[in-house]
Amino acid sequence: MAVPPSTYPHRLLPLFLGLFQGALLLFFALFVTYDEPSAQAEDTNLVANQVYSTFPFFQDIQVMLVVGLGLLLTFLPRYGFSGLTHNFLLLNFSTQWALVLQGLLHHFHHGQIHLDLHKLLISEFAAVTVLISVGAILGRASPCQLLVMATCEIPLYLASEWVIVTCLGVLDVGGTITIHVFSCYFGLGVSKALFRAAQQPLHPKETPTTSSDLMSLVGTLILWVFWPSFVAVLCQPGDAQHRAILNTLLAMSASAITTVVASSLLQRDGKLSPGHLQNGSLAGGVAIGVVADMAVPPVAALALGSLSAVACVLGFRFLSPLLARKLTLHDQCGIHNLHGLPGILGAAASVVAVLVAPKDPSGSQPSQLSPAGGNASEVAEGHWGVRGAGGQALCQAAGLAVAAGASLLAGLLTGAALRLPCLARPPERLCFDDSLYFKIQDQSESPEPDSSAEEGALALKEQI
Amino acid sequence: MAVPPSTYPHRLLPLFLGLFQGALLLFFALFVTYDEPSAQAEDTNLVANQVYSTFPFFQDIQVMLVVGLGLLLTFLPRYGFSGLTHNFLLLNFSTQWALVLQGLLHHFHHGQIHLDLHKLLISEFAAVTVLISVGAILGRASPCQLLVMATCEIPLYLASEWVIVTCLGVLDVGGTITIHVFSCYFGLGVSKALFRAAQQPLHPKETPTTSSDLMSLVGTLILWVFWPSFVAVLCQPGDAQHRAILNTLLAMSASAITTVVASSLLQRDGKLSPGHLQNGSLAGGVAIGVVADMAVPPVAALALGSLSAVACVLGFRFLSPLLARKLTLHDQCGIHNLHGLPGILGAAASVVAVLVAPKDPSGSQPSQLSPAGGNASEVAEGHWGVRGAGGQALCQAAGLAVAAGASLLAGLLTGAALRLPCLARPPERLCFDDSLYFKIQDQSESPEPDSSAEEGALALKEQI
Amino acid sequence: MAVPPSTYPHRLLPLFLGLFQGALLLFFALFVTYDEPSAQAEDTNLVANQVYSTFPFFQDIQVMLVVGLGLLLTFLPRYGFSGLTHNFLLLNFSTQWALVLQGLLHHFHHGQIHLDLHKLLISEFAAVTVLISVGAILGRASPCQLLVMATCEIPLYLASEWVIVTCLGVLDVGGTITIHVFSCYFGLGVSKALFRAAQQPLHPKETPTTSSDLMSLVGTLILWVFWPSFVAVLCQPGDAQHRAILNTLLAMSASAITTVVASSLLQRDGKLSPGHLQNGSLAGGVAIGVVADMAVPPVAALALGSLSAVACVLGFRFLSPLLARKLTLHDQCGIHNLHGLPGILGAAASVVAVLVAPKDPSGSQPSQLSPAGGNASEVAEGHWGVRGAGGQALCQAAGLAVAAGASLLAGLLTGAALRLPCLARPPERLCFDDSLYFKIQDQSESPEPDSSAEEGALALKEQI
Repeated sequence: MAVPPSTYPHRLLPLFLGLFQGALLLFFALFVTYDEPSAQAEDTNLVANQVYSTFPFFQDIQVMLVVGLGLLLTFLPRYGFSGLTHNFLLLNFSTQWALVLQGLLHHFHHGQIHLDLHKLLISEFAAVTVLISVGAILGRASPCQLLVMATCEIPLYLASEWVIVTCLGVLDVGGTITIHVFSCYFGLGVSKALFRAAQQPLHPKETPTTSSDLMSLVGTLILWVFWPSFVAVLCQPGDAQHRAILNTLLAMSASAITTVVASSLLQRDGKLSPGHLQNGSLAGGVAIGVVADMAVPPVAALALGSLSAVACVLGFRFLSPLLARKLTLHDQCGIHNLHGLPGILGAAASVVAVLVAPKDPSGSQPSQLSPAGGNASEVAEGHWGVRGAGGQALCQAAGLAVAAGASLLAGLLTGAALRLPCLARPPERLCFDDSLYFKIQDQSESPEPDSSAEEGALALKEQI
Repeated sequence: MAVPPSTYPHRLLPLFLGLFQGALLLFFALFVTYDEPSAQAEDTNLVANQVYSTFPFFQDIQVMLVVGLGLLLTFLPRYGFSGLTHNFLLLNFSTQWALVLQGLLHHFHHGQIHLDLHKLLISEFAAVTVLISVGAILGRASPCQLLVMATCEIPLYLASEWVIVTCLGVLDVGGTITIHVFSCYFGLGVSKALFRAAQQPLHPKETPTTSSDLMSLVGTLILWVFWPSFVAVLCQPGDAQHRAILNTLLAMSASAITTVVASSLLQRDGKLSPGHLQNGSLAGGVAIGVVADMAVPPVAALALGSLSAVACVLGFRFLSPLLARKLTLHDQCGIHNLHGLPGILGAAASVVAVLVAPKDPSGSQPSQLSPAGGNASEVAEGHWGVRGAGGQALCQAAGLAVAAGASLLAGLLTGAALRLPCLARPPERLCFDDSLYFKIQDQSESPEPDSSAEEGALALKEQI
Repeated sequence: MAVPPSTYPHRLLPLFLGLFQGALLLFFALFVTYDEPSAQAEDTNLVANQVYSTFPFFQDIQVMLVVGLGLLLTFLPRYGFSGLTHNFLLLNFSTQWALVLQGLLHHFHHGQIHLDLHKLLISEFAAVTVLISVGAILGRASPCQLLVMATCEIPLYLASEWVIVTCLGVLDVGGTITIHVFSCYFGLGVSKALFRAAQQPLHPKETPTTSSDLMSLVGTLILWVFWPSFVAVLCQPGDAQHRAILNTLLAMSASAITTVVASSLLQRDGKLSPGHLQNGSLAGGVAIGVVADMAVPPVAALALGSLSAVACVLGFRFLSPLLARKLTLHDQCGIHNLHGLPGILGAAASVVAVLVAPKDPSGSQPSQLSPAGGNASEVAEGHWGVRGAGGQALCQAAGLAVAAGASLLAGLLTGAALRLPCLARPPERLCFDDSLYFKIQDQSESPEPDSSAEEGALALKEQI
């Protein structure tokens, strides 16, 4: 399995990353600073309270992205180390890159960018889009391709998010439209343009084993537990945040049960599919984001959770094979079923919620996802006030259309760029294998081929 | 290993769950609503503070139940996926079911139930009883049987809890008596009635492997870390909560060390048993719950932790085999050693504590475990005030008797119901095997029987 | 693989631990009590706020030490259970032991020691030194040796920490010098004195497998996520804590990316080494501790994170083999690369920071690591005020020298004591094997040698 260095330019990865890290250092040296220390005791208390109210949510989200999502990607039995590491690397790269771009776009005052925990959090949200999109091409793309994809996706996300939240005034506190729908169709666009019309045969290393499925399910459970923090972190403290937490808990609980029902009914022998469980249990969390802090009744959260789990399982069972056959669309992790379909359901629910739900003056604050912070909120809130329920409902639908359409187009262009030969896409027979990127013990080599002989030798040596 | 569909009606599971989820939707649509939004800024701050003070504890408990307990159950090497999934499914089912029943019993005002995070938490505590009881029959019962057990156990728990906390005024902030002792004897009753006098021979798939023992130990460690949150979440903020956290930390630290001592002393070759470590380290957390917030000295927490670890290890070594031989009582996970014996020790300690410890006016608040919330607390507090230390000590003992006796009886009846043939108990030879319930790669099939051949074919295909 | 009981006195372990636990109980019974309950409502709020502000950080640190560090040590494929258990046991033992010593030294007033969460936290910090030092001799030392090492290291750490923080007034909020550098050189000293000039040949069970490397990487990721809590928990609330969190996040993000760059550049085929990733990603967290709360610009955190990752990877590639060859110094986990080199870098950075950075009156509070609490802070702060930037810089350098020099000496003496034959160092051929200490299924024995035959017998039995 010797890889000729000329064919697989592993050198590109450190070069690219090293240059990026150097440029980032320069950028930080020139422009980035911390907030001025607060001189007064009152301000100190304020900062302390902000830390105590945001930091636990922030840590929860870090656990989700680094450990939960990373483990979810280890379902490929011989690609677990790559899944975990590439997810970790992309999270760090994309967060730093988003920090730079958002700083330049929104927080550049008098030649300085003031860094705080909230801005880091917003950048991490941007990085989530990359981690989701990667799911479409996991295992068949090189790390260089993934980094180039991240480099393109972050600015495109920021542009799309600006249009959707700031211009259209779409309410989307949990990122259902801006993050999940966007990243799903972006990833599918990349996959389509990268693999074109090539049918991807089932690779012998692609089938999960019991132990890789178990690790992946642990990842799902970690994501499931901490998802409410992801949805609620940017809500207004008080009622809206409380409601967002409860709605998310209800939606995810309904998803978990409905996934079992749907998966079992779809199989002739009634056995559950691990893939359905790993994804369907989370579908409710994707869908609920856009309405989580609105004044919707609890039953709506339950219903949305159930519906999105059904959509997710049906997607795995029928839509994914159909798309693969008719459109030769390759979606390794089934991101269309976990992020696309539930995201569309959530957006549709937000249209209904805006039309039906009362606009609660204190609680139902608009999204703060915008990097511009408070301003965008007020703009969106203002929009809703001015344009009324019908206008806001139209905007929600328009936001969905922008997120899906623009990201698909952007993904197709990005995917075409990823075909550049210098990005070193691995050949099919070397896909799904950690040993292409890591100095790792091959699993087929037993850890102890003839350990008794070696032990004997060691014992002999000690006796001497 | 083909399973004739007529014998194992996998269809019953989705039917049962689907009907339940539908009924729940209807119930929520008719009766459940969120609290009115708080109109004033002060109230908003109050809600925000409640969220910040409860939510981190709540998340810790979710991690314990979903990830920690789930992983603990993966010690069966070929039943890990089932252990993790059934635990997750039962948690969601039981929480929703408890939410309905508690809403009807305690929170039904003017035809409406106001949902909040505290009520969800209380329902999750009820669900814990199911997750514990399952340990007695893990691997030999079908998911349908487990769901029917949960359906019976939740109302029985609510009744027992009402008697113990509200009527008897038992102080039990960490659920030692109401949750651990109750669920242990309930589970043993179910096991006895389900398996009757059948000796369960050691199943070839029952023996843990190194890697399944390792995963299970990780689960133990997660439970160990977050246990203080479970004990302290319902305490009065301030001194009582602080003391509950410290007492739990001390008890569990003593348990961890004492388990090593006891396990090592009991084996002729001095080697530690993984099962002892996985369970004994947690015994202190079970026992301390009932006295955690009382004005007991730190040494009492240490001593209780040590004693319960010794009891747990001795139970595994001597009592469990004895019960299996004499009473043909089958206890797969040894819940009697982890929840029964330490629970009894904790109850005994609470009798002593009530008699000896000074009643501290500000700190030693009574349990808020009651779904009726503040009222039960005041009732219990009032009881103690009226009846004095001797009376309260009697009540603690009576609570233990009710929890153990009533649950054993209820468990026997429930277990008899689980013998219904339609519930599809798996035959012995198919027990402890994920492949009965999941479309999962069989572990005996290597992921790559002759991968070199397949890889050669792929390489050939690419060259063409 | 039968172990003659006379050769390996497993009996010593329970004896030692049992005596310790008994003595601890006695000590607690005589001297330790909780704080007086706060009688007034205001005080109750204060205690509650302290719990809410400290407890989440405390839990994060518990997850790091119990789960994260434990999993990191499972990279030895047949020693995972031991790594996890010994880490857990040592954490509990060392924390209790530190609690006793610190109580006697610093908190003994009127014959009583008042226990609170902050003192437990400080003791846990002391225990961290043991967990780090163990890394140098993991797999080749018996549990008894590890416990004796812990018994010696805790008082030596307290002495060194007293000299460094209280006498010299070194600022070190994240424990870079006092914890990481100290424990690294202590561990290396122990290793040198324990193994002397013996070349340690590569043991057949020493090479990680894919799955053990994966588990270990999960441990790294858990440590990576929660590291900011470790650094920031003892900071002054407000700006300083906020800055410490941000600095740590930036440093660790830079470490993660730079590790990939450095590891990839160092290998001829450009593949990444799992060991580099597992350690280098954390190097930034080690280095940043000492300057995290100072008024350094964000770029300094990024640069320090990058530099320490480079140092860590270079250390693994060049320095460790060199030390092993020239000094026959054995460092199993490479603690010199993860804790030594980044610690020295961090100390150097603190010298520069003290000289260059403005002394911010409100934010840049000194370390509270000292068990004496507020006093030490004020002393250090006073020192800096009196002696000026130059004097403080000298002190930082002197602190580094004390931490490295004294610990190396202390480690050599401790290591010599560990050679006592009664401590049962395992012979080379039995090293790195769980089965020496645990009743564990041997991995070479398949869980189902001929399961079909057994299943047939069971099926037959059921038919009868």
